[in-house]
Formats: sequence, structure tokens, C-alpha cells
Amino acid sequence: MREHKPTIRNIMEDIKMIDTLVSKIKATNNPTVVGLDPRLNFVPSFIRDEAYDTYGKTPEGAAKAFLAFNKAIIDEVHDLIPAVKPQVAMYEQFGAVGIQAYIDTIAYAKAKGLVIVGDIKRSDIASTAENYSDGHIGRVTVEEEKFEIYKEDFITLNPYLGFDSIDPYMNNCETYDKGLFVLVKTSNPNSGEIQDIMVGNEHLYEYMGKLVAKWGDAYIGESGYSRIGAVVGATYPEQGSILRKHMPRTFFLVPGYGAQGATAEDLSGCFNSDGLGAIVNSSRGIIAAYQKDVYKEFGEKDFAKAARQAVLDMRDDLNRVL
Amino acid sequence: MREHKPTIRNIMEDIKMIDTLVSKIKATNNPTVVGLDPRLNFVPSFIRDEAYDTYGKTPEGAAKAFLAFNKAIIDEVHDLIPAVKPQVAMYEQFGAVGIQAYIDTIAYAKAKGLVIVGDIKRSDIASTAENYSDGHIGRVTVEEEKFEIYKEDFITLNPYLGFDSIDPYMNNCETYDKGLFVLVKTSNPNSGEIQDIMVGNEHLYEYMGKLVAKWGDAYIGESGYSRIGAVVGATYPEQGSILRKHMPRTFFLVPGYGAQGATAEDLSGCFNSDGLGAIVNSSRGIIAAYQKDVYKEFGEKDFAKAARQAVLDMRDDLNRVL
Repeated sequence: MREHKPTIRNIMEDIKMIDTLVSKIKATNNPTVVGLDPRLNFVPSFIRDEAYDTYGKTPEGAAKAFLAFNKAIIDEVHDLIPAVKPQVAMYEQFGAVGIQAYIDTIAYAKAKGLVIVGDIKRSDIASTAENYSDGHIGRVTVEEEKFEIYKEDFITLNPYLGFDSIDPYMNNCETYDKGLFVLVKTSNPNSGEIQDIMVGNEHLYEYMGKLVAKWGDAYIGESGYSRIGAVVGATYPEQGSILRKHMPRTFFLVPGYGAQGATAEDLSGCFNSDGLGAIVNSSRGIIAAYQKDVYKEFGEKDFAKAARQAVLDMRDDLNRVL
Repeated sequence: MREHKPTIRNIMEDIKMIDTLVSKIKATNNPTVVGLDPRLNFVPSFIRDEAYDTYGKTPEGAAKAFLAFNKAIIDEVHDLIPAVKPQVAMYEQFGAVGIQAYIDTIAYAKAKGLVIVGDIKRSDIASTAENYSDGHIGRVTVEEEKFEIYKEDFITLNPYLGFDSIDPYMNNCETYDKGLFVLVKTSNPNSGEIQDIMVGNEHLYEYMGKLVAKWGDAYIGESGYSRIGAVVGATYPEQGSILRKHMPRTFFLVPGYGAQGATAEDLSGCFNSDGLGAIVNSSRGIIAAYQKDVYKEFGEKDFAKAARQAVLDMRDDLNRVL
């Protein structure tokens, strides 16, 4: 394992990506991250058909359709939001061609100035975590030469293996100015099965939240937030408020708004009193907005404009409670 | 989410992959799974150079070198072992070309009759887990047509999100005859940070082990073992013995032997009294055996023969304590 000792020097220098995210949130007045989680039934038929004409009705055709769909959405929303969050599962399912579409989506969004949160939720022992780390947020080395592969700015990680499964990401976070969001309280209906069990006189999600906050203490940026953030589901408002108190300097990535059922009121407790401290994901609520009654006047052709309107409406909805 | 109701009918029918694994272990008299976790410094220079001649000293060259290395190892060991376990991180780090090498490795090992355990440790909410499930152990659908992508027989999963993150794999397990290994007690030094915390009067790994056993109860095969197995690290012998008692019908995937420091004695408690119930992984101890003093007479050229000898020695070492 690599040696890694955070020092006082680290605390004020070289810590930028979380600050970049915070300043983009301020500049857009919008804590929305758009989840780029395409599904074929979200993609308008004219985009699918164009991809199939060249690549066939194949995994490659599907992956190319996802990429074209994402690019159109990014073109319409990039000026309104700080970040996008591609969910790697949607791409990985199609094999190598899917992974290429994931990488190409990231490159396109980066070129538009967006912060990239790669939703990969990886977890492994240190010697393996180093490979995930090098591939996703660092550099892989082939005979002395270094290559940058995925190029996410942040990635999500699962903490069940403990700190030595998280630590191998910290060197790359420092060297290449990256950040992490570690799962603490997830948005799914069964998350309580493990995360709500009592550990002494607190819940496991609280225990985990305090651990993540402690791990992040050596990596506080100028914004006052740590390079190590946490995933906290908007579907559990009470738990979000509790975690906000336990983890004042931890930025939250908050899924669950919209399609999963959470409202702006539900997630207000995930924010600090300065209106910062969280970034809220919406995926299908934005990228498939044109399929919802409220945006159906845009029609399939203007699906990306419907996404833009959905982002504006979400921004206003969030700012209403902040 | 898909509907899924296990019934009595499921219990005796259609449950085969865990039985296939058990019968292969019996046929080879060997509970060894060879971890196909290549690193460039494991790969002999003549293999690397051949790949670089065609693909350059690039991620693609590295991925092609991994594939050639794996094929040579598989050729030499496939008759001695029931299964191989490729670690996807080693391939994923190189992007699309790496994922293709992972897929090609699986296809090659399958054609040699080996059971494939894809070490992917994925975790996500149900609607996303379905995509991992379809890609890895099911079929992805593109406009009504179904495609098989990764083709693992088993995959590893992280349970921190609870049962609704595991359930989306069960339909594909039944339809396509597959299985799972869910992380319970991992082999890494810090695994106790989360997994050993006290939950009432037991450790979290015990709580998790009992949950996994319960999840697996509806999927017991003719061998007496469930389609849902558990990952239990050999580096924690006491915990392994405790889990064996809590989970008599759960098959264990046991990492940690060899390079991570565990001995055959350490993992004997992971087996049932019939000498079954666990499959033991070794990665670098086998695939990089030629670099160890004890096998150095094989030389770089005969690295795969060194791997074969290491498998024979591991088999004998394990059988000594079973």
C-alpha cells in the first residue's frame, strides 16, 4: 500500500475540487446535479434510430444513442448547473462499448465546464482500490508512461470495508485535485436494514457519518468543506438533518429528489444555514422530463429543452426552501 | 422494480450453479479458485513485448498483455481447479479496452469448462442494480433483442444498501442459473472498523452473515448449499468459524490465503465437517508464482507451469487440513 500521511501543509494547499464545486453552485445559484442515467425508453426514437442506422440494434447502437442523448442534454443545461453525475451501471451493462460511452460523456461534459461526479460506488481491499483509484481519478501506468482514463472529478464509494478501502483514493485526490462521496445513508427503501441498526446508542448511519467526517477532517478546503463528502438520501429527511449536525464540514450528495419521491422540503435539512453543504441529484426527472405531463408540450423533438425547463423549475423549487 | 416471489417450486428446481461449483470441487478434489488479477509486473516481458508490438505501450497494449497472460495460465491450470475469479478493477482501470479483456478472459475460461466468479463488488439501489444484473449475469435488451455481455456465473456484491440492492439479481440468478457471493467479513486489515462493531450482543459481520443466510434460504440447491454465498476473509479465522456456524448452508468465497497472509489452518474453520462449504481464492500466489523463490527454477518462460505447480501445492496444502 502507498504511504499516505496527511499533514498540516495539505490542509490549506492543493485542496480545490470541493471549492470548485462550491463556487460553481454559487455562480449558478443552483445546487442541482443532473444524473446522466439514460435508459433506452428515455431516448427519443429519432436519436435511437440514428444510432441504430450506423451501429445496428446492438449494445453499441444503444451506447451511441446514450452518448448522443447525453450530449444534447448537456448542451441545453450546462450553463444552469454545477455538475453532472453519470451512473456507470447504465453504460457498464453494455460492455466495452458502454464504458466508452461513459468516458465520452464525461469528456463532453468536462469540455462544457461541468464538474463530473462518477457514480461508481466501488469498494475493495486497498491493493485493488488503488487500481480503481488510478483508473477513475488518477493515472494508470504502462511502462513508465501515465494515462488518464475516466477523468471523473468526484467518485462515489461504498465504505463497508473500512478506511483502508478509502485511503488508496486520497493520494490521487491530492495529486490530481479530486474528491469523493462516501455512502452513509442511501435513498433506497431497504437502506435501513443495515444502515439504521443500533450501534450502542446511535444508528449505524450516524456512526458511519461520524467516521466519514473524521476521515475528511484532514482535507478541508477554503470553502470550509472537505474533499471527502457523503451520500445522504433525500428520502430520509430526519436522518439527513441528524447527519447534517454530525458532519458540518462534509458536503452531501443527495439523491432521491423527484422520481424517488423526496420533495424540496424533505432535503432542506441536508443543507447548512448558509444554504450550502449539499448538491441534489435528479436523473429521470430532468433527462426524461419531456415524458412527464407537465413538460409534454415540448414533445420528443425538444426533449433537451424540456430538460432545461425541468432544471430551471428544480432550481427554483430548491431555492424556495434554502 | 421487478416482482420476485420465491416459491417452494424454486427451491428444488432450476437451482444448479452452486451445485455445479460443488461438483467441480469434488471432481478436482480442490476448493481453489485462481484469482485472475493481473498486474503488469506479474506479466513476463516476452508477453508484454508481444502485446506492445501490436498495440503500443498503451492501455490497450496492457489489456492485451493481461489477456495473453490469463490465457496461458488458464491453459495450464484449468484441469486442476473448479473456478477462476477475475477481479474487474484490474481491467476496468484501462477503460473500454480493459473491459474487453475482462470479457475475453471470461469467455476463454468458460470455454475451458471453468466456473467464473466475477469479483465486481457492486452495490446500488434497485433500479440501478437491475442494470448491473442484466449486464453481468443476465441479458441486456436493445429493442426487444437480448444480448449476453459479461457472462460471469457468480458475481460478488456489497450489501451495505440492504436487500432491495441484492434482490434485483435474483431473477437473473433463476432465469440464467447464476449465483452471488455477498460481502460479509472481508479480508483487509481495516475490515473490523465497520464489520466488527457491536450490534446488540453480536458483531455486525454476524448480523450481516445471518441476514445473508436468511436471504439465501429460498435458494438452496441439491448440494445443500444456497445460490447466495458469502465472502469471508481467511485472515480472520475466528470470525470465519463463527460465521460457519451461523450460516451452515451458505457457501463461502474465502480470499486472503497466501499473499494476504492466511494459512490453510486459518481457513479450515470456513469449511463444514464434510470438507465442503468454501472455495479459497489465491491470486498472485499462483499467477505470479514464478517470481517466488520456491518456483523460480521455472523461469519467466515457464511462468504458467509455475502457476500449475503452485495450484498443485495449494490443493495439497488445503487438503491437509480438510
